Amino acid sequence: MSVQLARPESGAHTDGLLLGIDFGGTKMAVGVADRQGRLVARERVPTYAERSAPQALERALHLAARLVAEVGGPLMAAGVASPGVIRPDGIELAPNVPGWEGLRLADAVRDALGVTEVAVDNDLNAAALAELRLGALRDADPGLVLGLGTGVAAAITVGGAVVSGHRGAAGEIGYAVSGGPWPGTMLELDFSGRALDGLAAELGLSGGAAALTGAAGRPGPERRALTARLDELARHLVTSCLLLDPQRVVLVGGVAGSALIRELLVDRLAEVLPHRPEVVLSRFADDAALLGAVTLAREAVAVTG
Amino acid sequence: MSVQLARPESGAHTDGLLLGIDFGGTKMAVGVADRQGRLVARERVPTYAERSAPQALERALHLAARLVAEVGGPLMAAGVASPGVIRPDGIELAPNVPGWEGLRLADAVRDALGVTEVAVDNDLNAAALAELRLGALRDADPGLVLGLGTGVAAAITVGGAVVSGHRGAAGEIGYAVSGGPWPGTMLELDFSGRALDGLAAELGLSGGAAALTGAAGRPGPERRALTARLDELARHLVTSCLLLDPQRVVLVGGVAGSALIRELLVDRLAEVLPHRPEVVLSRFADDAALLGAVTLAREAVAVTG
Repeated sequence: MSVQLARPESGAHTDGLLLGIDFGGTKMAVGVADRQGRLVARERVPTYAERSAPQALERALHLAARLVAEVGGPLMAAGVASPGVIRPDGIELAPNVPGWEGLRLADAVRDALGVTEVAVDNDLNAAALAELRLGALRDADPGLVLGLGTGVAAAITVGGAVVSGHRGAAGEIGYAVSGGPWPGTMLELDFSGRALDGLAAELGLSGGAAALTGAAGRPGPERRALTARLDELARHLVTSCLLLDPQRVVLVGGVAGSALIRELLVDRLAEVLPHRPEVVLSRFADDAALLGAVTLAREAVAVTG
Repeated sequence: MSVQLARPESGAHTDGLLLGIDFGGTKMAVGVADRQGRLVARERVPTYAERSAPQALERALHLAARLVAEVGGPLMAAGVASPGVIRPDGIELAPNVPGWEGLRLADAVRDALGVTEVAVDNDLNAAALAELRLGALRDADPGLVLGLGTGVAAAITVGGAVVSGHRGAAGEIGYAVSGGPWPGTMLELDFSGRALDGLAAELGLSGGAAALTGAAGRPGPERRALTARLDELARHLVTSCLLLDPQRVVLVGGVAGSALIRELLVDRLAEVLPHRPEVVLSRFADDAALLGAVTLAREAVAVTG
């Protein structure tokens, strides 16, 4: 299910608008919501990561300004979700868009859109916030969100709050160490949208990760290659579940949209975990982090105003 | 550093006593504390796990009754720490003492000692509570406690509380899946006091895990065999640190007493983690879970009385 836009009201939203921006390694989404956080406009555009980080940011900001103008109404606050750990002066641990680490996201949004309240957070933390407030984690504790998009990352919720970690880096399991002689490779190089795109190309498939998961639907070399990679992801997901004992695991991101990948993951958890969490697909499809960004904006207003 | 006993006061503790019992796969500890939670008597005895679970429980309860009588004073509450997940009608996930799963720990303590308030928890959760209230996690958030004793397990703290998980099973990383073809072996079979005892015997060393870590102090087959096992532990500790982003990791348990093991673990974390937590040895030596059990008793009184 995708998120429904709220019915457009006649005229401008005189009680104020909230803006959400979700930056991803492959796509960026911009959404404008009413004061209650209901999306009234939304657009998604490619990141074109290879062309440079500043152009991606600039295009997102232009799109945001256009959507706000189209909906009409004063902008009260913005929320921004991005891979990595977002600091005031840059972004750490976001390798999928070259140059992204040098961006000052909050400042750029303030300057471009003339809005004072700008809340930023990691994209998986934002997705987890959306699941906590609006989605699959409203009634589950602890919660684990696993993001399978261009990269791989996670977020955890305990007692109704997202756990950000000591340096804001909780959930960065893309850096996990895969099997074989120490230290092996990073999990994100084994299993992520980007890694599966590469694997698909190695196997002579055009169409990237989606073509690979399609071809892996029947036994054969594609299935064997995919499951070998997925076993590594499952290994670290098992450890994460053992550590946290979550009530529910929520899968988000484009790669999680593959029913085959979800089924293989669930099978592996069932095989080895003494206590199995529920595993569900986010009902926000690709919009979990965008809704989280809008929720960040909404909660920033609630705190300050 | 070991825990100091409080100076014995003259006569009985008329304001009441707290009892703590820490059941382990190799040793059991019983401590009696004053109302403020200061240990005034403590004794440690072997579990003799191979002789049966009921004999271990019965000996611990006899020891507890004797220590309480020796100190003198009414028993206000008892706290009990045990491996596994402690339910009213039995214990799950405690494979190191055969028969342990059938024990009703809280009922047994109530009946044997005539005390109404009995709080039970997993031994690593108890250790984490002691670290939060009295030790290395007083000023660190989130916190990760790694227990390297007869088995291997962990506990996590977030916002000043121990996270117990949906079914009380948070931290049971001994069930993690080691490297190699899926599903590999359980981490606890690769790296735990018991596993290292077995490895020592395979290598012709008498003296168990301690002899192995001693011999591994210099390059050679013992060092290679130990580091191969330790790499598996490090892999799952890395994933745990990535998921939680702890400020501090506290090592507890007999195997953690080896400086070589601590050094090898710290080296491996430093090699692959983008953000390195502090890694410290619990200053409670083998008493962390016992102090946690006393703290459970103390907090049970505080809640009800």
